[in-house]
Formats: sequence, structure tokens, C-alpha cells
Amino acid sequence: MSLRHGIRHSRDVPELVARARDGDPRAVARLVTLVENGDPALREVAAALAPYTGRAQIIGLTGSPGVGKSTTTNELVALLRKRGQRVGVLAVDPSSPFTGGAILGDRVRMQDHATDAGVYIRSMSSRGQLGGLAAATPQAVRVLEGAGCDVVLVETVGVGQAEVQVASLADTTVVLVAPGMGDAIQAVKAGILEIADVFVVNKADRDGADAAYHDIQGMIGLSERAPGEWRPQVVRAVASRAQGIEDVVAAIDKHRAWLEEHGELTLRRRARAAAEIEAIALAALRARIGTLRDGTALPSLAGKVASGELDPYAAADQLLSGLGQ
Amino acid sequence: MSLRHGIRHSRDVPELVARARDGDPRAVARLVTLVENGDPALREVAAALAPYTGRAQIIGLTGSPGVGKSTTTNELVALLRKRGQRVGVLAVDPSSPFTGGAILGDRVRMQDHATDAGVYIRSMSSRGQLGGLAAATPQAVRVLEGAGCDVVLVETVGVGQAEVQVASLADTTVVLVAPGMGDAIQAVKAGILEIADVFVVNKADRDGADAAYHDIQGMIGLSERAPGEWRPQVVRAVASRAQGIEDVVAAIDKHRAWLEEHGELTLRRRARAAAEIEAIALAALRARIGTLRDGTALPSLAGKVASGELDPYAAADQLLSGLGQ
Repeated sequence: MSLRHGIRHSRDVPELVARARDGDPRAVARLVTLVENGDPALREVAAALAPYTGRAQIIGLTGSPGVGKSTTTNELVALLRKRGQRVGVLAVDPSSPFTGGAILGDRVRMQDHATDAGVYIRSMSSRGQLGGLAAATPQAVRVLEGAGCDVVLVETVGVGQAEVQVASLADTTVVLVAPGMGDAIQAVKAGILEIADVFVVNKADRDGADAAYHDIQGMIGLSERAPGEWRPQVVRAVASRAQGIEDVVAAIDKHRAWLEEHGELTLRRRARAAAEIEAIALAALRARIGTLRDGTALPSLAGKVASGELDPYAAADQLLSGLGQ
Repeated sequence: MSLRHGIRHSRDVPELVARARDGDPRAVARLVTLVENGDPALREVAAALAPYTGRAQIIGLTGSPGVGKSTTTNELVALLRKRGQRVGVLAVDPSSPFTGGAILGDRVRMQDHATDAGVYIRSMSSRGQLGGLAAATPQAVRVLEGAGCDVVLVETVGVGQAEVQVASLADTTVVLVAPGMGDAIQAVKAGILEIADVFVVNKADRDGADAAYHDIQGMIGLSERAPGEWRPQVVRAVASRAQGIEDVVAAIDKHRAWLEEHGELTLRRRARAAAEIEAIALAALRARIGTLRDGTALPSLAGKVASGELDPYAAADQLLSGLGQ
């Protein structure tokens, strides 16, 4: 059965989940593909995985293109593997033309780990659907958790809204910057400062690295924090030479310990679960709106609004009354 | 009454709309502020404006920072004013720390037109709410239409998802690029190619302008189009010297004529109205979800999902059944 196709029979689901839990990379890949495609079996997959989720450490890694995210991810995986941890990597790229269905080790630069059974690597792209990744990524994280990963790294490209949403999946969000990229200013503008738990100044052997380091420290110093709130750590690294990676992991561990100590881990995970449930419920309502009066309700109201006969709020009221609200 | 505050009495709305229709810039500014703040009077404002909307030409203008959007907007406004058209400008910047409530002529660079009664200029920022601008911008466009603008220019910064959504408001979307900014490649990645009706190669007197022009023409040539579909126009301009602006307007007019000729204008406006109605309905449902069981329904389900007791789909079902679905 091709990886590109969905589940044929719902009796396949328990078997597939069992195989994924046994560490079969093909079963894991298959489940992620189901999630990415929004397969009808998704509900059943989610139900089968639920008991095994909520235990892994979720780390988000983000930064502008060219900042060294993949190299850093690669080195983080190597270090976590040395500690004996099973690691899952989701590389999320909304702009990638790459169209899912990938087998493990689909990215050449990750080939160091392609033959390591303790590592799952997977690229995900949005396939042109707005909000598609935001919906699929949490489910993909659940698959990797269910498959026994101790750590799941979610690597996102760029610093846009979609990335901020994806980063909100993580227990700890690591933001990479590099000297001379103006990232510090961009970070402030894009709201990255608020989501970063750890900053990594990568390519720290280059000119301007000290300036970047101090810029970020300065920004952190200026930003408001409630008493007892986490102060983002700033770490220097040269990922291409595997330098500073221990410091990155130490900062992540420190943040994780802080989260647990302050009860924040539970709070963050509940907030994430709430957002996930709400998104699923709203998607279901949206689908139902699309089928009202055989699909004619919304287009007919839209015609009236476009012609000025009705205002959009009154039209929304009529739509909701059709939903039985 | 301060511009920063909402409507005190609902009897103010008809008077405010009447004043806006008479061309009172303060009344227009006040209505846009109501829209931006999501004031409770919004429904009444929308109802009062409905009969006067749907007539203006909506032009979207987008491109990376530094490409010359404001200069181009400024020159476009000057040319449209010469034709005797009333022009509204909404400058939408999701990353701007600027916090609304602005009076007209709030942007220094637009001061050429600040004292011209036929021009309304307004900056809008998202004020940190995801999706906030996407919801408020269509209503702000309605205010400017209602106030008698013949043309509404919606200027957005950047080429991210939010900008694509905002651009979808327009009848005609103009994408600005500049030589040597790698915009052509970025455009393909960000899906800009699909939304651009007119490309403007600004700063066309600089090195690399011809290369940029031919890159874009090449991309357009390679992209798939159904027979009879619009082929994006590419225009050269030097907005800082007011060169090429006539060509930009000619390309916009040509696209507008094409839209009308092919019945596309009606289709686009209906699609936009549908998206707007749906967004309002979903926001209402979301608010209702938040109040279920005195606000405890979602947090309680989220706790169960976070602990693995429930999967998120089953939780969403329970939430929907609480909504009376």
C-alpha cells in the first residue's frame, strides 16, 4: 500500500498504531501522512494515540532562512541521541513546494541520522492550504509522541504569523539568529521576543556576533517581565562545527526545569490542548456551514451582501440560525 | 468625545454615518476606529453602511519593506485625484507598533494629501491580535466606500500569509518589486504570483531593473493559466520621480475592464462577501464556545486532552454538543 494513500479499512488503525509504538518507521511515516492529508481515519488515529501522548518534551526551533536551523537541529539530534533519548524531528516549511508523503530521511542534510532507528525525521508543508499546517502539526507531534519519542523538535522557517502559531506548540521555543542579519530588530517587530525562551546566536565566530549577542541581551533587559517570570537565555554557537550545542541543550533543560517548577508546563499544555480542540470544533462548524441548504446558504447570503442588500453581520446571524444556533 | 472611545449611545450611529457620507473626515476616522476596536456598535454601523457599499474600486498594493510602496501610493493618489476621483487609503501594517485611533494624515510621508478633502488616509495595525486585521480591514473598506470614496487603496507591508489575506480584499492586486531584492523568487515561494494582477518594477532606473522585469515576465510565462484567464501585467516605474505612474494606473484600469467583461468582478466580490460572513459567524461561535458552562467547558476538556484521557476530536465533539450542535 502506497504511503500516499489513506487507510483502506478502519481495522488497519489499531495495527498501524501498534506498529508505530513498536518503532516501525514506515508505520510512523504512514500515520504522519494520514494526519497531513486530513484522512477520515484521523479521528480514530487520535483516539488510539491519546493514552500515549503528553509525555515527550516538545522543542520549537525557529529563525530566518540561512541562520543555520537545519545544521543546529542536526547537532541537537546528535547530542540528544548520545543521552539515549529517542528524537522526532518535524521540519515545517509553509513555503516549501515539497508535497509530503515523504519517507524518513527525506532531507539530505539530515542524512547523518537517516539510518538511526532512534530518530524520526519528517518534512511537512502546507500544500497551499492556509491554516493547514497549524491544524496538522499538533497531530503529527502526537504521532511522534505515540511512537515513543522522548523529544520532538519542531523546526519552522521564518518569523511570520504561521511560525508563531507553530512555535506555540512547543514547551520551549528556541530562536536562532545570526550576526548581521538584522534579526534582533525583526524579532521585536514580529513578536518573536515574546515567544523565545532561548536565543541562540549561531555563526558566533563571525564578525558582528558580539553585537548581535549584546543587542539581544539589551532587548531582553528592556522587555517587561512579571516577578518570577522566565528570563530568556542567550547562547552562542557555531553549529557547523558542533560548538556550543551543549550550552543550547543546557539552556533548554534549564527552561524545562523552570516550567515544571512553576507549574507552567501543565498550564502551557492545557492552553495548547484548548487551542487544538477549538480549532477542530471550528473546522467542523465551518464544514457544516458549507453544507447548509445543500451548499446554497452562504453563496446566497454573499450575493445579498455584495449587492448591499444585507450587511455582513445580519448575514452571519442568518447563517447561524440555519446552523440551529 | 475622544476618538479613542466607542459610541456612547446607539442613536449616535445614524448621525455619524450621515456625517461620514457628507464627507466629514472626523466622522470617517471615528467609524474606522469603531471598526478597528470591534466596538459593539459595529453591527449597527455595518447595517447603516450596507446600502452605500459595493461601488468603489478596491486596489491592493503589496510588496517587501523598502520597495517604495508609500511613495507609489502617494503618486497613485495624486493621479487619481487629478481624474477627480475621491480616494481612500488604508495602510495596513501587522507589525506596526502604531496603535490606531489616528487622525487623518497620520503618516508624515502622506502629508502631500493631508489637507485634500477628497482623500482619506488611515493606518491600521493588528494591535497584537492574530486575525484582528483580517477581520477589521473589510469593515474599514466599507466605511471608506460608504463615505463616498471612488477608489480605496489598501497598502500592506510584506508578503506573508496575513498580507495574502488582506490582498484578497481587492478587485485588483498590485505587487511592487525592486531590483536586486530577490523578490521574484520570494514571490513564487509566498504564493504572491497567484495573487498579483499587476506587477510594478519600481526603482526601474537602478541596476538590475531589466533583469527583475524579465524574471517576472519569465515567471508569468511559465505559470499555468486557463484559456481567457488574466495575464498579469508588468510595468516599470520610478515612483520617487513620479515616472511610470500613468502606466500603473493604465494596467489597473485594464484589469478592472477585464474583470467586468468576464463577470469576474461580481464573482470576486461575492467570494469576498462569503469569506467575510463566514469569518463573522465563526468569531461568534468562538465567543459562544468561550462562554459554555460559564467558561469552564473548554478548559475542562483541555485538561483531559493534555493528560491523555481524551483525544482532541472527541473533545471537540463534546464541545459542539454543548453548543446545541
